[in-house]
Amino acid sequence: MFIRSKFFEDYILNETRATLGRTITETDFVIHAGHTGDFFPHHMDAEWCKTQSFKQRIAHGTLVFSVAIGQTALEINPEAFSKGYDRLRFVKPVHIGDTITTHVTISELADDKKTGFGKVVEHVEVSNQHQQVVLVCDHILLAKRKN
Amino acid sequence: MFIRSKFFEDYILNETRATLGRTITETDFVIHAGHTGDFFPHHMDAEWCKTQSFKQRIAHGTLVFSVAIGQTALEINPEAFSKGYDRLRFVKPVHIGDTITTHVTISELADDKKTGFGKVVEHVEVSNQHQQVVLVCDHILLAKRKN
Amino acid sequence: MFIRSKFFEDYILNETRATLGRTITETDFVIHAGHTGDFFPHHMDAEWCKTQSFKQRIAHGTLVFSVAIGQTALEINPEAFSKGYDRLRFVKPVHIGDTITTHVTISELADDKKTGFGKVVEHVEVSNQHQQVVLVCDHILLAKRKN
Amino acid sequence: MFIRSKFFEDYILNETRATLGRTITETDFVIHAGHTGDFFPHHMDAEWCKTQSFKQRIAHGTLVFSVAIGQTALEINPEAFSKGYDRLRFVKPVHIGDTITTHVTISELADDKKTGFGKVVEHVEVSNQHQQVVLVCDHILLAKRKN
Amino acid sequence: MFIRSKFFEDYILNETRATLGRTITETDFVIHAGHTGDFFPHHMDAEWCKTQSFKQRIAHGTLVFSVAIGQTALEINPEAFSKGYDRLRFVKPVHIGDTITTHVTISELADDKKTGFGKVVEHVEVSNQHQQVVLVCDHILLAKRKN
Amino acid sequence: MFIRSKFFEDYILNETRATLGRTITETDFVIHAGHTGDFFPHHMDAEWCKTQSFKQRIAHGTLVFSVAIGQTALEINPEAFSKGYDRLRFVKPVHIGDTITTHVTISELADDKKTGFGKVVEHVEVSNQHQQVVLVCDHILLAKRKN
Repeated sequence: MFIRSKFFEDYILNETRATLGRTITETDFVIHAGHTGDFFPHHMDAEWCKTQSFKQRIAHGTLVFSVAIGQTALEINPEAFSKGYDRLRFVKPVHIGDTITTHVTISELADDKKTGFGKVVEHVEVSNQHQQVVLVCDHILLAKRKN
Repeated sequence: MFIRSKFFEDYILNETRATLGRTITETDFVIHAGHTGDFFPHHMDAEWCKTQSFKQRIAHGTLVFSVAIGQTALEINPEAFSKGYDRLRFVKPVHIGDTITTHVTISELADDKKTGFGKVVEHVEVSNQHQQVVLVCDHILLAKRKN
Repeated sequence: MFIRSKFFEDYILNETRATLGRTITETDFVIHAGHTGDFFPHHMDAEWCKTQSFKQRIAHGTLVFSVAIGQTALEINPEAFSKGYDRLRFVKPVHIGDTITTHVTISELADDKKTGFGKVVEHVEVSNQHQQVVLVCDHILLAKRKN
Repeated sequence: MFIRSKFFEDYILNETRATLGRTITETDFVIHAGHTGDFFPHHMDAEWCKTQSFKQRIAHGTLVFSVAIGQTALEINPEAFSKGYDRLRFVKPVHIGDTITTHVTISELADDKKTGFGKVVEHVEVSNQHQQVVLVCDHILLAKRKN
Repeated sequence: MFIRSKFFEDYILNETRATLGRTITETDFVIHAGHTGDFFPHHMDAEWCKTQSFKQRIAHGTLVFSVAIGQTALEINPEAFSKGYDRLRFVKPVHIGDTITTHVTISELADDKKTGFGKVVEHVEVSNQHQQVVLVCDHILLAKRKN
Repeated sequence: MFIRSKFFEDYILNETRATLGRTITETDFVIHAGHTGDFFPHHMDAEWCKTQSFKQRIAHGTLVFSVAIGQTALEINPEAFSKGYDRLRFVKPVHIGDTITTHVTISELADDKKTGFGKVVEHVEVSNQHQQVVLVCDHILLAKRKN
């Protein structure tokens, strides 16, 4: 983690960065179930999953989202804060043993009604080891303007 | 957890349900940091937080979101699946010791381009012990139609 | 979790309910050892287990008991409280990858010396994916009488 | 942990041993809820507990039982195995910050129908820092006879 | 995390870097005990600690060491590998609620018997929120030479 | 855990003790990454590891060290305290599924400048299931003298 000031004017449209990879393990499934209280059999019952079309346990959507966003948490920008996320979509299931990588692209720079701030949209794309997109979302940041 | 079949036609606009409460502990902060790899000082450094305007550690946005969605995971509906979330907003910070409760309201029922399915939107509102809203989002489900 | 008032008179002898399944993972073994401090090689040393008659790691008795009882925690009854357990027996070992399901049967309804309460016995039976019983016990509840 | 062979004849009636103490923390509550899936508000909702007669969060019965039994796991006896537990009773609530110690007394030595084995009963008593008993149970062991 | 190639010749004597801070919580104590199996009362029994000269629970030495080294894991250098540590000393106890920061200084650059590699020593100093040193050690790296 | 007083004069040069074994699991990798914040791909990215000479995930050095030292934490000696470690070396990688055992030998007994104390060095050697040494270090204790 590094602290680096970045104002609205410092963000560059279409700039992109990628994280390193992380293998999603059975442990992550069990920790996420225990953290959230969601023990649905889709995530926790290997026998039942065998009887379903998807055949094996599927990661919680909130697991993939949380880990992917965590992967991008490398640089602290004291001039910006996170407002939220739009268009979060679970595109493909993530299974035990899949390795995910997260790509972030500055996809929009716009005015915002909050005085002194501009709106930055980071398009987040999470892929597995087969280069298949498994999750997408748009991260909405508000960044201070230089003046 | 219960399994209960609910088709698109079974959802009722404006129907609402609330979860029980759950206190967000320092343990949840530490587990979420360890689960996601996000050790930003906003969540993990009590001394630094004292020097900031918010004065105390703030829960990760993905923590509040994951726990709140987990709170709603009571009933398994084999006729529907989660497509994603829209308009996820972090309205107020959650601190160690806050107790959150989640309210879900069916806010939209609409056609969907996926044949044989309808779109159900659940508006999710997470409140703290002072009845202040801390997080909102819209959960998008696709539910099978009866025919 | 739901809150539902159930008085002594509302319990029905021989009524039965079953939980969904849950796969017991290596993660559960490691978490339970860390939670309880019991690192006996029966649970934690795969090499040593290979030299024993049971050939592979065996779940702690308290792990299977705790998870099985946790599986039944679906409905909160403010009119009853748990007094304890009788005849807890470890019938068969549980190994990594086994999936357990818990059946609860109201096996006894009786007077109790505690004024205003009746005694409810729930017979708890935990089975693996081969429909073999692995653990049994009798849960003793005291439930308020209607008058 | 030590390995020490102890046959049925080696057990001495009324022999007693005590563990060191362990403070039950909020972390133990959160880990146990996550491990078992039991997020009942008695254990997890500090605000709701304030409105109840017990005023503060109460440890899961299975938490106190598992940790107490774990405290006694110091010596491995290859000549005995655990058959189960009788008369497990939750005598007093355990709250966050309580420190528990476990006493084990050989309370019964008897014949058993299993050929070549004798039955050993260990009476287990768990106390808090005020020397109040919080949990009791009888541990049933079967130990090999010397001949 | 970033990947950045740094050869032996790229290391600069006396160059220094500092991490952000991290508050050591009761949760870290409980997780470390569970991870390592060390439940000594110095770390786990708040009541007993009150009767000792240090008055309160003390972090495991391996906890402070592991977390401090983890704090420095920001940049991956594919041209170097960790050989080990020298002169690891526990200078002062770390208690629940202390916030630690880690400073790393290149304290030695030397030849090594391993062909094609040079020896880099990083002096690691861990301080608490009172600017008191709590742990020191020397990290020994072997880094590839440019030729 | 047992409490046993052992003065400097009670330590015997070359005396040795061995722990039981413990299998290092994928769960230990994930817990250690989460505990320390070190998510380097060497430990967490199975796909990337396949492209490296070591082919599979490698345990953090601090993981092996912490678990090995934890294995030796069986007996509390109120007459001694840990000063630190010397010559900690990572001799061979530890992979998921390896089982480690720790041997401790009293390798040095010497005077110390601290009045009333003597210096005890325990040589610690950690081996895997193939009897290969994976980690060594020297533990420095100061033990009270009898007078």
